[in-house]
Amino acid sequence: MTSATNDEAAIRELLAGLVEAIRAMDLDGIRRFYASDIVSFDFEPPLSYTGLDAKLGNWKKIFATHERPLGYELRDLVVCVSGDVVFSHSLNRISGMRTNGTPANRWVRCTNCFRKIEGRWLIVHDHVSVPADAGSGRAMLDLAP
Amino acid sequence: MTSATNDEAAIRELLAGLVEAIRAMDLDGIRRFYASDIVSFDFEPPLSYTGLDAKLGNWKKIFATHERPLGYELRDLVVCVSGDVVFSHSLNRISGMRTNGTPANRWVRCTNCFRKIEGRWLIVHDHVSVPADAGSGRAMLDLAP
Repeated sequence: MTSATNDEAAIRELLAGLVEAIRAMDLDGIRRFYASDIVSFDFEPPLSYTGLDAKLGNWKKIFATHERPLGYELRDLVVCVSGDVVFSHSLNRISGMRTNGTPANRWVRCTNCFRKIEGRWLIVHDHVSVPADAGSGRAMLDLAP
Repeated sequence: MTSATNDEAAIRELLAGLVEAIRAMDLDGIRRFYASDIVSFDFEPPLSYTGLDAKLGNWKKIFATHERPLGYELRDLVVCVSGDVVFSHSLNRISGMRTNGTPANRWVRCTNCFRKIEGRWLIVHDHVSVPADAGSGRAMLDLAP
């Protein structure tokens, strides 16, 4: 295998580990995947925020409103790696039950950008969203691939 | 300068060229920046689409609803390059006048991912969005950085 093939396999394994940590609602597990100064364009406002604490705070909010186990899956994952930079994109689905008793079933678009920092791949930027309908001002929360 | 520094400068120059083409509403100019099989997580539905024609179709829709010249600016641009892979992210503002006579002023989050293909940097993935307010179901169309 080439180095790039090895690295792509490593990133896919890493993302599988992140999915496991999310399903387990394991904040300490999730913490290991992000750079301390991650710039996140996240699902909810603001437009942009910086830092691991804010990122984990958003996961904490999701975990607080969902029952265990949380359903989380990726599809159409593309990983592109060169040297110490990677980007990946996928359609991610959160499912399971909300704590208010309603079923959860939401697909979001997710782009993750990694850098290898001191030998570890870390997410330094992510972008998570649903499309907007500009005419009606609605967030398209119920689309499925 | 190192090769990475040169490449970062090249990508910043490329993005400046894309901004100019957008301001000029120059579809043929814009075409040069995208890979034929770009995977776009765009501002409006669907969740995801593939291909240059669809990408240009979306730009065409924006151009059809705005007066010339279109205002377009990037801020907080970060460019991260290694070998033949790049990601960049920024907050982008569309401004000017709509053809319906109302002023345009919208900030979006934009992540661009490039690959060097046959010696040319091309955008193979982009992700453009505003945040969603999950509670109200609103797209947050009027946020500013």
